[in-house]
Amino acid sequence: MTSKVWRGFASDNYAGVHPEVLARIASVNDGHQVAYGDDQITAELQEVIKQHFGKHAVAFPVFNGTGANVVSLQAMCRSWEAVVCAASAHINVDEGGAPEKVAGLKLHTIATEDGKLNPELIETQAFGFGNEHRAQPKVVSITQTTELGTLYTPEEISAIADQAHANGMLLHLDGARISNAAAALGLPMRAFTTDVGVDVVSLGATKAGAMVTEAVVILNPELVDSIKFVRKSAMQLGSKMRFLSAQLLALFEGDLWLRNANNSNQMAQRLYEGVKDLPGIQVNEPQANALFPILDPNVTEELQKSFRFYVWDHLTGQVRWMCSWDTTTEDVDSFITAIKKAI
Amino acid sequence: MTSKVWRGFASDNYAGVHPEVLARIASVNDGHQVAYGDDQITAELQEVIKQHFGKHAVAFPVFNGTGANVVSLQAMCRSWEAVVCAASAHINVDEGGAPEKVAGLKLHTIATEDGKLNPELIETQAFGFGNEHRAQPKVVSITQTTELGTLYTPEEISAIADQAHANGMLLHLDGARISNAAAALGLPMRAFTTDVGVDVVSLGATKAGAMVTEAVVILNPELVDSIKFVRKSAMQLGSKMRFLSAQLLALFEGDLWLRNANNSNQMAQRLYEGVKDLPGIQVNEPQANALFPILDPNVTEELQKSFRFYVWDHLTGQVRWMCSWDTTTEDVDSFITAIKKAI
Amino acid sequence: MTSKVWRGFASDNYAGVHPEVLARIASVNDGHQVAYGDDQITAELQEVIKQHFGKHAVAFPVFNGTGANVVSLQAMCRSWEAVVCAASAHINVDEGGAPEKVAGLKLHTIATEDGKLNPELIETQAFGFGNEHRAQPKVVSITQTTELGTLYTPEEISAIADQAHANGMLLHLDGARISNAAAALGLPMRAFTTDVGVDVVSLGATKAGAMVTEAVVILNPELVDSIKFVRKSAMQLGSKMRFLSAQLLALFEGDLWLRNANNSNQMAQRLYEGVKDLPGIQVNEPQANALFPILDPNVTEELQKSFRFYVWDHLTGQVRWMCSWDTTTEDVDSFITAIKKAI
Amino acid sequence: MTSKVWRGFASDNYAGVHPEVLARIASVNDGHQVAYGDDQITAELQEVIKQHFGKHAVAFPVFNGTGANVVSLQAMCRSWEAVVCAASAHINVDEGGAPEKVAGLKLHTIATEDGKLNPELIETQAFGFGNEHRAQPKVVSITQTTELGTLYTPEEISAIADQAHANGMLLHLDGARISNAAAALGLPMRAFTTDVGVDVVSLGATKAGAMVTEAVVILNPELVDSIKFVRKSAMQLGSKMRFLSAQLLALFEGDLWLRNANNSNQMAQRLYEGVKDLPGIQVNEPQANALFPILDPNVTEELQKSFRFYVWDHLTGQVRWMCSWDTTTEDVDSFITAIKKAI
Repeated sequence: MTSKVWRGFASDNYAGVHPEVLARIASVNDGHQVAYGDDQITAELQEVIKQHFGKHAVAFPVFNGTGANVVSLQAMCRSWEAVVCAASAHINVDEGGAPEKVAGLKLHTIATEDGKLNPELIETQAFGFGNEHRAQPKVVSITQTTELGTLYTPEEISAIADQAHANGMLLHLDGARISNAAAALGLPMRAFTTDVGVDVVSLGATKAGAMVTEAVVILNPELVDSIKFVRKSAMQLGSKMRFLSAQLLALFEGDLWLRNANNSNQMAQRLYEGVKDLPGIQVNEPQANALFPILDPNVTEELQKSFRFYVWDHLTGQVRWMCSWDTTTEDVDSFITAIKKAI
Repeated sequence: MTSKVWRGFASDNYAGVHPEVLARIASVNDGHQVAYGDDQITAELQEVIKQHFGKHAVAFPVFNGTGANVVSLQAMCRSWEAVVCAASAHINVDEGGAPEKVAGLKLHTIATEDGKLNPELIETQAFGFGNEHRAQPKVVSITQTTELGTLYTPEEISAIADQAHANGMLLHLDGARISNAAAALGLPMRAFTTDVGVDVVSLGATKAGAMVTEAVVILNPELVDSIKFVRKSAMQLGSKMRFLSAQLLALFEGDLWLRNANNSNQMAQRLYEGVKDLPGIQVNEPQANALFPILDPNVTEELQKSFRFYVWDHLTGQVRWMCSWDTTTEDVDSFITAIKKAI
Repeated sequence: MTSKVWRGFASDNYAGVHPEVLARIASVNDGHQVAYGDDQITAELQEVIKQHFGKHAVAFPVFNGTGANVVSLQAMCRSWEAVVCAASAHINVDEGGAPEKVAGLKLHTIATEDGKLNPELIETQAFGFGNEHRAQPKVVSITQTTELGTLYTPEEISAIADQAHANGMLLHLDGARISNAAAALGLPMRAFTTDVGVDVVSLGATKAGAMVTEAVVILNPELVDSIKFVRKSAMQLGSKMRFLSAQLLALFEGDLWLRNANNSNQMAQRLYEGVKDLPGIQVNEPQANALFPILDPNVTEELQKSFRFYVWDHLTGQVRWMCSWDTTTEDVDSFITAIKKAI
Repeated sequence: MTSKVWRGFASDNYAGVHPEVLARIASVNDGHQVAYGDDQITAELQEVIKQHFGKHAVAFPVFNGTGANVVSLQAMCRSWEAVVCAASAHINVDEGGAPEKVAGLKLHTIATEDGKLNPELIETQAFGFGNEHRAQPKVVSITQTTELGTLYTPEEISAIADQAHANGMLLHLDGARISNAAAALGLPMRAFTTDVGVDVVSLGATKAGAMVTEAVVILNPELVDSIKFVRKSAMQLGSKMRFLSAQLLALFEGDLWLRNANNSNQMAQRLYEGVKDLPGIQVNEPQANALFPILDPNVTEELQKSFRFYVWDHLTGQVRWMCSWDTTTEDVDSFITAIKKAI
């Protein structure tokens, strides 16, 4: 399986880089540019980001999603403050403890059904303001789309933002798959960020077709000053930054981000349509680019001989099938064929 | 100066990416690869690293030099331990406090003449073992070539390694410009690392012609187990790692690293030859790719209208001229012409 | 209520210091003693601790409970490791985020009914060993008696220790109220610590009648070396340590610890007997020195005019009544009278 | 030497507790008091502190000097900021790395002749404002009296405060021996703190005759809000705080602090007078309670058979003789006799 070109359903970061991204990288390679972000390409990026997120938005390219999240949260918190998030949040379960270890952040976690927070749930952790025995809740962090494949509406995010702000808190949105969310909602990204009160966005790029970059996008101008220092001390400041900014430009200057997201969402839908009525499979309709079906373990084992994907829950037999910007209809159809055969 | 293609003498990370690196990146872009380092390209990298650093060497690609240094040092230290380094070390003066802030590392710093440590100097900070009032010295960190452009001989490094090990300490080598050092010494990298007792190397790639990658290279097998966890929790684990490994392969599989280093070293030598006898300039012969001349501030001001470079010491008028892998003889000669004119 | 001498049921750290503790402090005040623990009194303490916890036990006096817990946990963990604990654990909810902020510790928390962990519950968080995306579970931390007033049997702790060790993990016991547990079980402390596999104990003293001290007691000899360094760098090393050790001697050399614990447990029992059959009150029999009754909020409000205690859950009306080493039968009886009147 | 009552010249924290402090502790022991600082005794302390430091001063009792310093500095700094201090500062050499390890603080250290900073020296590290590659200088920390026994005048501190504030920085004063400084200067403490622009003081008490307490005293009202949270998350919040506050009251309500400091200063002076003209001893007049004579190592070795003191510098033979609140004229005279005999 590893000796030749293959594509699976394991993760959108198993995919390669979109050719337009590679081309953009090559196009900015001539001559010298000032390092660490004072270059022309990063200046162009700022204009593009403002088109997506409004005139106050400022982008700070970083290396990866963990970096984007931790830099965002650390810039929003004083040393004694804390973050309220879903127990299933990437920052809680999949970042090796980086929020705690790099930034000393306490996470007040909340169990959820579907990876989504709401004001009632947040209430269970957003308390104890002024009581020094409790790490002070300062940020609510949500993920769009969530780690469980679900989607917030703009109204849902607006309600969370209002609650956070009413409590003197800020709202962070982990947008590792923000493109898929925008595509699924049929809305510009600002409709569920800037326009509804989000303060900081981790803007996903790697899963959307880039090579190695994400960005912290500051929407709340009061937070701009601290970010550049936090990015540096958190080791997320790239020297030849033009090449990070070029990747972001390739995605977001035109509609590549949206084309890629639409493809992965549509492939997930196609996969769903092909398997939803099969016997021995339980699966909900995907809200974006991921399916979380429940399979017989023997079926899973048989399928994994030919296709990579992750078991999500050994107890229930739930697996995760993730479509990428490069997933093709042929990939999906041959996977469906294999599933039918395995069942 | 910023509206068209230009090259200056400010920094080797103002340079772009060597075309062979871009080509290698493109060559590994087909299909899916397992994320986070379990890919074929990273496996190939391990073989190449062993050719350079010996059979026990293991490479862990990271994003940048600060990341390479802090991940290295954190993996070598328990929470109460400390690092002995030159006051001029990059980890002390140019990383925004990342060693302290990300990893809680205490730096025991030593003033030096030329950026180089030696056993007598190290002795002034390597004391207090067993006394809990003193952050316990555990690592000596040296930089090759140093931040002041100087070079250690293998014998000098061997003496430091012996002293460190005799005290139960480890030796880290910040090799942001290790290629330039090898080229200047006319020796393979292992001659002044593996062969003389260095435990961990921060292997520089970005300044040597790569885009966005460096690597932690573990030479002491006892340290291998901790690195992968530290790299992740320090936010230096790339998802699409094949593209970091491809950059390292482009440089180190053949001799691109050495060709690039030889060029930048030779350009520095050419620049030195062209200016050493000029009136009003004091300059030592470069040991690698950097010159640190002392100029009249008016000359500096005039020159900076056409060429970017940094003032190193406002009090003395010392400046830094750094040559890169892409510096050409034409660049150097037109700079020499401008210097003569400015003087 | 604050203008004269009073005693309430709010917390065992509202109580003062037992006179025998004050006397012991005064008795060690003559002349000089070496600072930071190399004094005669601390040497005597070590012998007493060995009598309680076995010949390998070593005590490290610290200032407070948070200090004891964080020093313990940090000494047990490398920088990428994590602690499994109940969501209701003091380290999770009542230490201002100190484990995360001082030591970078990730807490993998588990919801429980009664504040107690067991192997099945621990299993839900003790996974992902070797996977760097997950902060590596290294310690299980339990509290005896728990923050919810419940008690572990030696068999229950033994089962947890076996599971932890089988997974390469260690077991920490937060013994802020360990005296009450021993008194309630009618067992020496070692019966549910040393003898069943606990590796490190936070030995409570302040709530048991001391003024300002607790101790980290190391039962696993492999952990002894790191503790002294961690205690210092975590700012828990007292200079005039003889006065911390004297407090611990006053409690633990004789049976003062047990007399005090028996009193507070018995007073809680007396309170329970006096109110259990009252209408409008729901209350379980106390396992040690705390009751968690559910009251009508009006009754609570009326009672709080004369007696201090905490509301534990505003939604259910649950309150906490805590008895101390200095609670008297008169205190309890007048409280019962007031409760009857308020109802 | 350790089997009976003795007094040496090793450290002022080898001394015991002044009897008036013990009496005050006993006097506040009746009944219950609200824990964690909401007690009557701590309220009284605030009034006493205002008498010393002015109406805006607020005291936060902590456990030890390292705690006082790190809590102070952390409350003054954002995560990317740094502290400028003398290389000989206690925070740099004697706190086990706590500033770095607990609070992530970068120390920009400055070599000095005598442990004292001044604006010219500070200038060498107070630069790079706005440049994220440099941990941003935010606090200047000085020690009064210094670790080398020297004393700042109010004018000297005023000049440092002005410089710090002109650069947007704050001034912290480590007053572990502030009483000795006030006694030596013949001035109230506010004359060289509040009145000349110091923002935060670590108020020493343990060395001045207390048992186990120090206090952070906030003079700059803007910093008050953050301290209580930092004190808790840094594990320096005592539960039975009345007993910390009582120690501070015993010292500072009347003139015990001054009596004790005058005694230790005078004993140092007496010791100086007795040895200054002896052959084979080089010693400067003490500015407070410490002498730093240079002795023949054989003399030191002979003396240490009967009197404890520390060798300060093995290379030069410099030793430290520290007088305490409890040093008597008999102690000094018998020490002088022994010195004469040993020489």
